[in-house]
Formats: sequence, structure tokens, C-alpha cells
Amino acid sequence: MGLSKENVTGLILALASSVFIGSSFIIKKQGLRRAASAFGVRAGVGGYYYLLEPLWWVGMITMIVGEIANFVAYAFAPAVLVTPLGALSIIVSAVLADIILKERLHKLGILGCVMCIAGSFIIVIHAPKEEPITSVLQIWNMATQPAFLAYAGSVIVLVFILVFHFAPKCGHTNVLVFTGICSLMGSLSVMSVKALGTSLKLTFEGKNQLIYPETWFFVLVVAICVVMQMNYLNKALDTFNTAIVSPIYYVMFTTLTILASVIMFKDWDGQSFSTIVSEICGFIVVLSGTIMLHLTRDFERSHSFRGSLPTSPTLSVRLYTGNGDLLLKEDESPDNTC
Amino acid sequence: MGLSKENVTGLILALASSVFIGSSFIIKKQGLRRAASAFGVRAGVGGYYYLLEPLWWVGMITMIVGEIANFVAYAFAPAVLVTPLGALSIIVSAVLADIILKERLHKLGILGCVMCIAGSFIIVIHAPKEEPITSVLQIWNMATQPAFLAYAGSVIVLVFILVFHFAPKCGHTNVLVFTGICSLMGSLSVMSVKALGTSLKLTFEGKNQLIYPETWFFVLVVAICVVMQMNYLNKALDTFNTAIVSPIYYVMFTTLTILASVIMFKDWDGQSFSTIVSEICGFIVVLSGTIMLHLTRDFERSHSFRGSLPTSPTLSVRLYTGNGDLLLKEDESPDNTC
Repeated sequence: MGLSKENVTGLILALASSVFIGSSFIIKKQGLRRAASAFGVRAGVGGYYYLLEPLWWVGMITMIVGEIANFVAYAFAPAVLVTPLGALSIIVSAVLADIILKERLHKLGILGCVMCIAGSFIIVIHAPKEEPITSVLQIWNMATQPAFLAYAGSVIVLVFILVFHFAPKCGHTNVLVFTGICSLMGSLSVMSVKALGTSLKLTFEGKNQLIYPETWFFVLVVAICVVMQMNYLNKALDTFNTAIVSPIYYVMFTTLTILASVIMFKDWDGQSFSTIVSEICGFIVVLSGTIMLHLTRDFERSHSFRGSLPTSPTLSVRLYTGNGDLLLKEDESPDNTC
Repeated sequence: MGLSKENVTGLILALASSVFIGSSFIIKKQGLRRAASAFGVRAGVGGYYYLLEPLWWVGMITMIVGEIANFVAYAFAPAVLVTPLGALSIIVSAVLADIILKERLHKLGILGCVMCIAGSFIIVIHAPKEEPITSVLQIWNMATQPAFLAYAGSVIVLVFILVFHFAPKCGHTNVLVFTGICSLMGSLSVMSVKALGTSLKLTFEGKNQLIYPETWFFVLVVAICVVMQMNYLNKALDTFNTAIVSPIYYVMFTTLTILASVIMFKDWDGQSFSTIVSEICGFIVVLSGTIMLHLTRDFERSHSFRGSLPTSPTLSVRLYTGNGDLLLKEDESPDNTC
């Protein structure tokens, strides 16, 4: 097993994060249903009565706890381990939706769950051991190595081209434009989130990192990237069906994040060829399982309860960590007025 | 990479076998179409004109070559490697059906193909190295070790119970009875096929194994097992829809074969925990991909060409090696009279 003690901590946090985020959707949806039946006004048609429903707030808090766990997980384990495991939140919400909300899981959906779990196992088993980081300066050196600067530079150039050339021309007809911007920025967010998380972890351990300007630079990068992502993800969700945006975004975001992590943290250095191939196969399996779950839930949607859940400002905040938790979100997106 | 030179030979043979068997279905189907349009009589309604069509014979020969390659593969590589790779023949036939017969592949079918390939990669990478075998007596010792005798004994008892108790009572209502008999016998067939293949390989290398009665015992076991399997597989296919029988049979057969091989050849001895878990995950992925391909092709069937292909005596011969090649066979089974 390639799991160090740090990796195990990160793994447990990532799994806990998926459980929290996956169940938060169900709790919030239950809260919205209650609010709708209690006040007779559905949130989707303008009501904000759901803010008076305690259950909705429980869901909200569950989600925030999940996002924090996800953030902290990046400080302990490599991104190539944490990011793809986000797919497990889809399983949690799909299974809970089946049990609690009685939204029956299609048999292909069950297969999708099996796949995500098998793929996750493969990824966890072959996860690289990370070199212990003792200072933010070490991460700074990794971030400023020529290979990663080339990656970050290409991302920025691509994002500029997409934002200024393609977005006005075909952003509203081609789903890849907005989701591409989000995914490219997302890979940089995760890298800076990891840098920031590690700095905070070291600070809590007594090695104050807040004295270095590098730490504050990473704070700035996180802020810029997350705002960009939120903005363009909302645009994508406003323009296209969530069932189309979600799997495309998940696949692109996860792939680019892994690429960025492999370049910056050299996750694959010193690993055998077979381990790397296994990891890639594991990713492919998880991605396929995710696509399948999305496709089959899409198929099921017409038969299931449509709660007309409200658009909330939290919509995209939780997306930047790429928890693959877009699944149930279509109910909250503004284009889904039933 | 856990691949020895012998394993590589076995792998190439297994892959070649899948390509041959996968394409044989397409060639035969093309041949049947030609025969139908040339003679105006469809094979399904009693005609045997397809025997005059050279293309049908090309398909037949392709299939036989594929089965021989599969048989020989077992002499070189462990069954835990060769058996699950049989699923690749489904991909070959699905892709060729799409290209040549224009039977469009569903998008979930493409995902199933991706899954089978990713799972196969994982299996191949983690395949165990086999101890070189120098005499059939060595295999005989493996087959007569207490653990394997217990397995073989349980299989025989289970088959007896299924044949004499359950088959008359619920064989025609429960799909698991006939497919269970086939799968249980199948696991013994593969073990004896492997013993026989290895003996023949050694004989060709100059170490004559035909002088040992053990070799002839394995010949007998192969004959009995294959006849049993053919008989009950035909019963299963006569009673139930092929689209139901195929995935169940494939899953049970592959699982039992791996179990038998692990017990008899101790494939997993000396392997690390993570390698074994990876192999199991690889199997699960291939099995899921296979189920998905079957389910989606089932879904597609109503839209695709139904050739009314004839029931031929070769139907079950090629099944005992578990090439997962049942996919296109529904067109040949007698219950599919369009």
C-alpha cells in the first residue's frame, strides 16, 4: 500500500467531505420540501421562506463542514488522491436520494456507483507518497519551477483566449467554452488551495507561515481563481442544462487538476510505470462511473420529484473544490423552472 | 510490470483470440445477410443456403482460429489473466458492428467499452507470474492438493443438487439454475483445459506428456465438462432471453474460474495486498463494463437489424472458454424468431 500516515488523514478527510457534501443535498432538499408544504410557496417561484426552515440550515452547515474537510484534505494528501474521490459524494447523494427521497436509482446508476467505488480503490492503492513539506517557500519553489510556470502560463493564455475571443462568439452555443474556463482556473485553484492549506497546517503546528509574502500571494490566487470559476460556472449553468455541464466539467476539471498536480508536485516521479498506468485507469473508471450516474439520473429526472429549489449564492462556492457534487444541483439552477 | 515472457505470449494470444472471435460474428452475419439476399430464404426460417456462402465459412474459420488461440493462451498465462480478457471480444464485435453493420453503438455502450479496456489494463498490469511448469505431474499435484479437491468436490456436489433437485423444479423459471450449472462446470473446464494445453505445449517442446495417464485423465475431464456445459447452456438459451443469460453467465463463469485458478495455481500467493485488491477491482470494472454493453445493446436491439440467424451446433462450443462472446448470439438462438 502506498499510503503514508499523512495520506490516510487526507483520505479520511476526503471521504468525510464526500459524505457531508453528498448528504447536505438531501437534507437541504428535505428542508425545501418542508418549507414548501408549510408555507405553500415554492422557493423557485420567488419565495425565501426556506430560510425559516431549520432543516435547510442544517443542510447548509453540513455542506460547509464538507467543504472545509475537503480544503483540509488537500493539506494532507496529494491532489491526485483527493480530487477524484470527490466523485464519491455523488454516490452518497444518489444512495440517500433513493432511501430518503425515494428517488429510485436506475440499475445502470447502481453500476455507476460500483464503478466509482472500484476506481476509487485503485486510485487510493496507487496514490503517491508526498514528500513532507516544511515551509511555504518549498511550495513556492515548486510553483516557480519552469515546467509549472509553463503550465500556469498556458492556462492563463488559454483562459484569455476563451474569455475574450470565444466567449462572446460562441459561449452561448458551445458548452466547452464556459466549462473550459472553469476547469482551467479550477486546476490553478486546487494548486493554490493546497499551498494555502499546507501553510495553515504548518502555522497551526507552530511554524508560522503568515510572515511570508508567498502565503499571501497564494491567498490572492485562490481568491481570483475562485471568483472566476464561480462567475463562469454560473454562466455555464444559466446557459446549458446541468446534466450536460456537470459531467463535462467534472471530467475536464479532474483531468486538468491531476495534470497540474503531476507537474507541480511531481507526484509521479519515482513511481513505477505500472503504478502510473493503474492510477490513470482508476481515474478513467471513476470518470466513466460519474458520467454514467449523471446520464442515468438525467434519464430518471422526468420521473422524479422536482422540487423547484431556489438559486442560492452558495451554488458555485462549493464547486471550486470539484467535489463532483453538481448532481442534484440542477434543481437549484435558475433554468429549471418547472 | 508483473509480466513474464510467458505471460506476454499468453496475453498476445488472448488478445488475438478476442479479435478473431469478435470479428467472426460480424463476418458470419455479413455472410448470412448475403445468403439471405442471394437466395431469398432466411436461415432462421429453415434455409441452409448460408452453407453455400463463402463469407459464412470465413467467419466460421475465424471463430475456430480464435478458439484455438484462446486454448493455447491458457497454456502460457494464468487463467486470472486470460479469462477476463475474453470480454474484449465483445468490444471488437460491438465496434465492428458499428462500423460494418451500421448497428450504432449507444453512448453508454462506448462507456462500457472504455470500462472493459481500463479494467483489462489493470488486470494485465497486476497479473501474477506463474511458476514454470515442467511436467503434467506437477499440475496433477496441484489438482490433488486438499484445497482444490475441496473446491472440485463442492462444485460436483452443487452441480448434482442443481441438476437433480433444482433443474426439474425451477430450471425453467429461475435463470440461475442452468447458468449456475454451466458456470460451475466451466470453472473446472478451464482448469483442465489449462492442464491439457500445458501438457501439449510440453509435448511439442519435446517432453512427451502423453505417456502419463494423468494427461488422459485431463482429456476426459475436458470432454465431460464441455459436453455438460454445452448441454445446459443450450437449455438456458432455449429457455431465457440471451440478453439476460449472457451477462449472468459471464459474471458467474469468470468469478468461479478465477476462484478455481487462485485455489489450484495459488496465483495470489506471494502477491502484495494492494496487487490483489487491484486485480479484484479490475475484474469488477470489466464485469461492469460487460454488463453495461449487454444492457445497452439489449436496449438497442429493437432498433437494429435482426438477421434471423440460424441455430447452429457451434453455438455452445465456443462458450466454454468464456470469451464473453455471447453478445451477438441472440440472433442465432432459437427463441429469437422475428
